[in-house]
Amino acid sequence: MADNAHMPADAEHAVPPPRSARAPVSAEPPRLRDALAAWAEAVGVDHVQFDDNTVERYARTTGPKPTRPLAVLTPASTQQVQRVVQIAGRFGLSVYPISRGRNWGYGDACAPTDGQVIVDLRRMGRIVEVNAELAYAVIEPGVTQGQLYEHLREHHAGLCMDATGAGPDASVVGNALERGFGHTRYGDHVRHTCGLEVVLPDGRVLNTGFGHYGDARAARVYAYGVGPMLDGLFSQSNLGIVTRMGVWLMPEPEAFCAFFFRAGRDADLSDIIDRLRPLRLQGLIQTAVHVANDLRVLSSRGPYPWDRTEVGKPLSDDVRVGLRREHRVGVWNGCGAITGTRATVAATRKAVRRALRPYGVLFLDDRRMAQAKRAQRALRATGVGRWLGETIDLAEPVYDVLRGRPSREHLRGAAWRVRGLDTSQPHDPLNVHAGLMWTSPVVPATGHDARRVMDIVEPIYAEHGFDALVTFTMINERAMCCVTNMAFDIREAAEASRASACHEALSTALREAGYHPYRVAAGAADALAEGSAVFWDVVKDLKTTLDPGGVIAPGRYEPRGE
Amino acid sequence: MADNAHMPADAEHAVPPPRSARAPVSAEPPRLRDALAAWAEAVGVDHVQFDDNTVERYARTTGPKPTRPLAVLTPASTQQVQRVVQIAGRFGLSVYPISRGRNWGYGDACAPTDGQVIVDLRRMGRIVEVNAELAYAVIEPGVTQGQLYEHLREHHAGLCMDATGAGPDASVVGNALERGFGHTRYGDHVRHTCGLEVVLPDGRVLNTGFGHYGDARAARVYAYGVGPMLDGLFSQSNLGIVTRMGVWLMPEPEAFCAFFFRAGRDADLSDIIDRLRPLRLQGLIQTAVHVANDLRVLSSRGPYPWDRTEVGKPLSDDVRVGLRREHRVGVWNGCGAITGTRATVAATRKAVRRALRPYGVLFLDDRRMAQAKRAQRALRATGVGRWLGETIDLAEPVYDVLRGRPSREHLRGAAWRVRGLDTSQPHDPLNVHAGLMWTSPVVPATGHDARRVMDIVEPIYAEHGFDALVTFTMINERAMCCVTNMAFDIREAAEASRASACHEALSTALREAGYHPYRVAAGAADALAEGSAVFWDVVKDLKTTLDPGGVIAPGRYEPRGE
Repeated sequence: MADNAHMPADAEHAVPPPRSARAPVSAEPPRLRDALAAWAEAVGVDHVQFDDNTVERYARTTGPKPTRPLAVLTPASTQQVQRVVQIAGRFGLSVYPISRGRNWGYGDACAPTDGQVIVDLRRMGRIVEVNAELAYAVIEPGVTQGQLYEHLREHHAGLCMDATGAGPDASVVGNALERGFGHTRYGDHVRHTCGLEVVLPDGRVLNTGFGHYGDARAARVYAYGVGPMLDGLFSQSNLGIVTRMGVWLMPEPEAFCAFFFRAGRDADLSDIIDRLRPLRLQGLIQTAVHVANDLRVLSSRGPYPWDRTEVGKPLSDDVRVGLRREHRVGVWNGCGAITGTRATVAATRKAVRRALRPYGVLFLDDRRMAQAKRAQRALRATGVGRWLGETIDLAEPVYDVLRGRPSREHLRGAAWRVRGLDTSQPHDPLNVHAGLMWTSPVVPATGHDARRVMDIVEPIYAEHGFDALVTFTMINERAMCCVTNMAFDIREAAEASRASACHEALSTALREAGYHPYRVAAGAADALAEGSAVFWDVVKDLKTTLDPGGVIAPGRYEPRGE
Repeated sequence: MADNAHMPADAEHAVPPPRSARAPVSAEPPRLRDALAAWAEAVGVDHVQFDDNTVERYARTTGPKPTRPLAVLTPASTQQVQRVVQIAGRFGLSVYPISRGRNWGYGDACAPTDGQVIVDLRRMGRIVEVNAELAYAVIEPGVTQGQLYEHLREHHAGLCMDATGAGPDASVVGNALERGFGHTRYGDHVRHTCGLEVVLPDGRVLNTGFGHYGDARAARVYAYGVGPMLDGLFSQSNLGIVTRMGVWLMPEPEAFCAFFFRAGRDADLSDIIDRLRPLRLQGLIQTAVHVANDLRVLSSRGPYPWDRTEVGKPLSDDVRVGLRREHRVGVWNGCGAITGTRATVAATRKAVRRALRPYGVLFLDDRRMAQAKRAQRALRATGVGRWLGETIDLAEPVYDVLRGRPSREHLRGAAWRVRGLDTSQPHDPLNVHAGLMWTSPVVPATGHDARRVMDIVEPIYAEHGFDALVTFTMINERAMCCVTNMAFDIREAAEASRASACHEALSTALREAGYHPYRVAAGAADALAEGSAVFWDVVKDLKTTLDPGGVIAPGRYEPRGE
């Protein structure tokens, strides 16, 4: 897979062979110099980089606080990762593991603090196993969504996967470990992993579930194993480096049907959530359902309407009304999917249509999608043809992720407010100075809670001069991850500073109302200790036990004590 | 709830007030005497028992190795549990927590070793909260299946729960922490819990998920919280005492339909599993599906046919054929359920019928059940009436658990081979000298694996003179818990000793073939270290950190090092 953000190093940027003492190395303090030499021996001299170009590249972020790594290591195997952490421990240095570094808007590839050594696992990109009978894959952290998708398409046409909107170059493992989510029945990623291989801070290799029994038949099909279940320790944590993971896949369904709906009034949000919840609780809808506001949808459909707004002000209501009309977007816009046999899909469609009747549910399946494309070609020159074409263009990226196909289109939103950008195609946010900061509270799936969160969030965004881009994702049968974000231009210092203040205000207000985040940025752990009792002390106890020297990612999901 | 096994202590059996020195206490070593006095102060003198009657009652087990507790404490609140562990720590004693002590066949209420102090949480029987909108309950460990069921029936008719076959008196929390399972969509119990309150060995109270933020709105609807997920540390472990748990419930479905099927040949097992797996993987069947052999079914339908077998031999094939015919039981017998709207249930029935066509699927819903009962009453005097009556008697207990209703009927199997038992009603196995030992490997949901497990298990059972009672439960979309057991009479020393040998042989053979248990008996942890690397060392590290004094349940899911 292409991975433009992390180009392989030129030879001249590589660390010199061990024991040599050329200029760039002699400038480093001795323990780093010795560590770099030891790492070069462990992973190969080409895979230890600390030249300015590399460091700058890894220090890029869509957020306000870039951090500079000391060096970047790219080990190629579990054994090499073991040696990497052992060497770090020996020399008192800290490593920050990334899978692909696509943690966009949450710190990207940046460690929580300056001076950590990035361990980029991109070279560990093996799809170790695909089991078609039991529908799972075993993969390394460097495997991207696009890579897994293409592999399945070529070799296992009967299997499909879940995909996030983070695009084809994002890591599957990295996203699951951050508890990311997609759109399908397996949209809750960490819940559909099974069996982790973890390099512990002292270099031991732990296999969770049944995986520590070398021959276990059920290691990839039953996650609990026997005895305590340790998997939870290694998501959103700094207790180990996951080097291999079982990921559950879905058989291609006999029938698939996406559904879309939209609401014309902001006040409809509560009603929508209250109508969707019973469908989820009854097991009628099994996929993650996404409900996005107008701005979220608009942000991936075109450039920011600079000509219709004042600097430092959010879009006016009038402009929003106009944009909604132009792009045929609702105030709230939802999508999900139904899978099963033809008969069960038809029966479930009825239930969905009945429940969401006021919101004009549109069903779309492969056949209708193909028909629309044919009609569009036939009617190309007509108004209807153009209308159809536009509709397909708009629906297709969403249809793709509902189908579990990674799409680059969703990255557009991140660069929405970058000035002077060619918007004919999506960009890597880091390549175009996109500013992006998420605030992502978990919200009970009730209309009342959704409304309350909007009432907290919108005035704060407005006050700081930002538009509130919001999605509610029903990630399980009774909870939603609400993802809100600012999109801005990171080169505009005033805007970036307002963004930080806004993010801080949002986090505080949501926390005080009892809505805590499902995920935070790399450097944002400290606030997690606010209002908490005992939990983080226990996490600290565990950290001290497993990683007394602070080898792995100090500060990551590790609030500093007072 | 009635709880015959653990009657409240008579006053005369209670510990004397602190600092008194009556005869029964002075016989104890000083640190125990002092601890008992401190506990009496903490939980009340009536709730510290160490008289012989109590100790004997708690030392009963259906397995081969009863262990004797030093005393039994029955705290009534989280605060009391905190004081209980702190006192244990101070005096260097160990406590063994039980919720209701119904861990039948896995050690029952017995600690792994003699000399632990049972902490029986039966008095912590509060249903703290039921949220009908979001379909969950928050309960204490003493809450039984029967109690929760009745509470929902009386106050929240729109909600239903999952139930195991362990009967109305078993604890909901205790079963989930042992990773037990039932029959419905929420049959995988630990997966449908959300938020634990845990008393740590040093007396601190940890709330997992978002629960450690006092005001978290999503604490009972989203289990992960933010940062590492710690819940896994407290199932099948000895790292804490769970004093409160969120349990997800299901809304009463618009339509419900149970399905039953049976196969006439042993060789059909593989085919059945291979036909069921795609239905589970596609999300068409969402419930746990149980597939039981003839003996498992027969064991809950009548007394053991002593007159047709030789002592120390399993039932002959001829006898099995005869019994199957008499009781209209297949060689393999399956059940599951479908819920949804009337239309989705009808459509799913078609898919199930099509997939299982060779096995004569029978569908049963509330309407047909009622019809059959009416018909049976009308035709009481006729052959058809009797036949209908028998059919209803057989189907009803299974129908009940498929509906999430706890039933005592499933306990019959445990006492199958107890001599001279009145079998007109089910018994508490501990009251009737039932011998019961489970061997419960986890098996990938393939026909090949199911066959292989049977080929390992059956000869070992036969060799030791036992009948193999077997169920395969498809607990998730790709794995089965295979539950096999010996039923015997614990008073028959030779039989009990053969049972132990058989259990050992089964565990070893299954482990060597890569089929590891989903759960083990209280005293059976040592074998878990066989063939494992690193995992149990890490568990030991965690134990040493959280419980350096070994206060909680030493030996429970804690293999002894070599």
